[in-house]
Amino acid sequence: MDIGRIRADTPAVARRAYMHNAGAALMPVPVVDAVKQHIDLEAEIGGYAAATQELERCEAVYDSVARLLNAHRDEIALVENATVAWQMAFYSLQFGPGDRILTAEAEYAANYVAFLQVARRTGAVIDVIPSDATGQIDVAALERMIDDRVKLIGITWVPTNGGLTNPAAAVGRVARAHGIPYLLDACQAVGQMPVDVQAIGCDMLSATGRKFLRGPRGTGFLYVRQGLLEKLEPPMIDHYAAPWVARDRYELRADARRFENWENNYAARLGMGVAIDYALAIGLEAIEARCHLLSGRLRDGLAAIPGVIVRDLGQNPSAIVSFTVEGREAGDVVAAAQQAGIVIGASQASSTRIDAERRGLPPVVRASPHYYNTEDEIDRLLAVVR
Amino acid sequence: MDIGRIRADTPAVARRAYMHNAGAALMPVPVVDAVKQHIDLEAEIGGYAAATQELERCEAVYDSVARLLNAHRDEIALVENATVAWQMAFYSLQFGPGDRILTAEAEYAANYVAFLQVARRTGAVIDVIPSDATGQIDVAALERMIDDRVKLIGITWVPTNGGLTNPAAAVGRVARAHGIPYLLDACQAVGQMPVDVQAIGCDMLSATGRKFLRGPRGTGFLYVRQGLLEKLEPPMIDHYAAPWVARDRYELRADARRFENWENNYAARLGMGVAIDYALAIGLEAIEARCHLLSGRLRDGLAAIPGVIVRDLGQNPSAIVSFTVEGREAGDVVAAAQQAGIVIGASQASSTRIDAERRGLPPVVRASPHYYNTEDEIDRLLAVVR
Repeated sequence: MDIGRIRADTPAVARRAYMHNAGAALMPVPVVDAVKQHIDLEAEIGGYAAATQELERCEAVYDSVARLLNAHRDEIALVENATVAWQMAFYSLQFGPGDRILTAEAEYAANYVAFLQVARRTGAVIDVIPSDATGQIDVAALERMIDDRVKLIGITWVPTNGGLTNPAAAVGRVARAHGIPYLLDACQAVGQMPVDVQAIGCDMLSATGRKFLRGPRGTGFLYVRQGLLEKLEPPMIDHYAAPWVARDRYELRADARRFENWENNYAARLGMGVAIDYALAIGLEAIEARCHLLSGRLRDGLAAIPGVIVRDLGQNPSAIVSFTVEGREAGDVVAAAQQAGIVIGASQASSTRIDAERRGLPPVVRASPHYYNTEDEIDRLLAVVR
Repeated sequence: MDIGRIRADTPAVARRAYMHNAGAALMPVPVVDAVKQHIDLEAEIGGYAAATQELERCEAVYDSVARLLNAHRDEIALVENATVAWQMAFYSLQFGPGDRILTAEAEYAANYVAFLQVARRTGAVIDVIPSDATGQIDVAALERMIDDRVKLIGITWVPTNGGLTNPAAAVGRVARAHGIPYLLDACQAVGQMPVDVQAIGCDMLSATGRKFLRGPRGTGFLYVRQGLLEKLEPPMIDHYAAPWVARDRYELRADARRFENWENNYAARLGMGVAIDYALAIGLEAIEARCHLLSGRLRDGLAAIPGVIVRDLGQNPSAIVSFTVEGREAGDVVAAAQQAGIVIGASQASSTRIDAERRGLPPVVRASPHYYNTEDEIDRLLAVVR
């Protein structure tokens, strides 16, 4: 990995140590240029002509996502963000009274309130899979929970805090063995590690462009496995998802674009395509190794500081490092880092309420380095905390 | 209206006569700058810090939309596009077997397929309000159709073709008199004429940024009247629409942002705010008058050309002019105009199937001038058609 070139593509790193990639990463120059050039083109020839002129590049974004996930382009929907992606999949599923939704202790708030809404509407119940001693999903416990009433396994792969990487593929083996639909929230996973939907065995996967993929805000995508998507009627449709073929009849598209609608922000979409290609060119294995190196250095350094408690869970921590500092509010630590030119964030208990309540977590500091960070930047953050 | 300054704000008009505003208008320079500057800011300080730094301007977009519509800012949701706006309102409504949805002959395809989906799910029926002799909604016929089973009046104000401006306020008086929810698709109306939700009497109104408002693609908004929105549970929620307040409980936001989700394209949103302020500064009455002048000149000129049939309907035509040319496909006319440096579009029967089938319409040419066009440009288009 040519860190010098990568940092040159990200001019802001000369002015700040940016470790808030679990919020929104810094876009590299080629992404910024793609967005701005398309806006300029729209202003010059009009938004429709611009989309037509760039049709091939717009279509190639589906190929980029498919390559990123080891999926087929017809299994990809490009949508506004990860939440919309997740919602279009989840709300397509049918539940009845007593049907069970299995989820994880660290499930993200956005998903959990949707579970609650559907449970109230349909009489479905939400059952939380226990965590094992390391804090990750207990796959043996999951296996024991399976019965005929389980209609969905819906979990977050890399939760928004807690450093956890849930065993997504082990969960997939259980889901496959029992023929249960498996919806994986990969919002924090894409861009920091290889993602292979075949190896994971998930049926649906949602993700965002703005985090570790380094794409623009307001971008996301959904993967739905071919065999399943044909059976799913989206919760809402327009004439793009479902062309109006006769006065009293529409026909759902055969591909995953049935989860899209007609109008899009093409500039942002093209930016996301460039971001994905940029990540693929570097290589996700290399990115994962460097994220592991940098977050490991940060975690180890923090653990050695008296009064600091690293709050991370699981056997195979992600690039998200969460911690608390005795006698200091999370917000104060973030502000102190900001003073030193280091950008990190904080995470509230309400983002992952079940996990946070179980562990009695206060708001935690969240530092999320990426491959474009340096060991020196990690050490600067450690110095601030110290 | 200072047409010179306005055209200077739209440099592309020096290179093409752009009359495809019913598709996507040309953004003025301040809109383009707002989008690009925010993208640059995100690349410099990160997407979250950029949104925080521009929080006041982001919040002011709600005020701009509220001013545009004569609504309260708490009644406004900013969403990805007009379709999402319309869907979030429509799919929040509850229907049962035999409940009636009243719509218009020129209803847009996106909305009609959603009606069909909900009719199939719930047993509701769709009844089409007849048009009067001029081709606009027959308000007296609407009044006669009202009974206890009518649960929604959902119409398009300015259809995508046909030059029609439906009598939105007269429909509103019927809806109010009978206490029936009234959803108005104002996608083609906003930005070309004054829009006053109080005067119209609609309960819900959806619109886009990219058409006559001259905002970026991938922007839209929804208005829902305060008294109604409190009763509507959105079809899909996340933790922004409905904070997760306790393990088994969420609380819907009290304002119209319950129809939004957490993540947004802030650059596009800021661009839409600038576009709205730009239109308000010129004045919607002045814009309407000039649109009327230019589209009237075009319509009159076309009507005088042998072999040309103007296909427009209604008593008070909009800035959308649709026509056919004997012996020429619509696409050929569009291409001939393109050769002459004039951008117009075509509209397919499948966009407004009921109206198109009733009238036996082939694909029509659609020219949609805006206030930034000139009489000379209109005359150039007439010369091409001639």
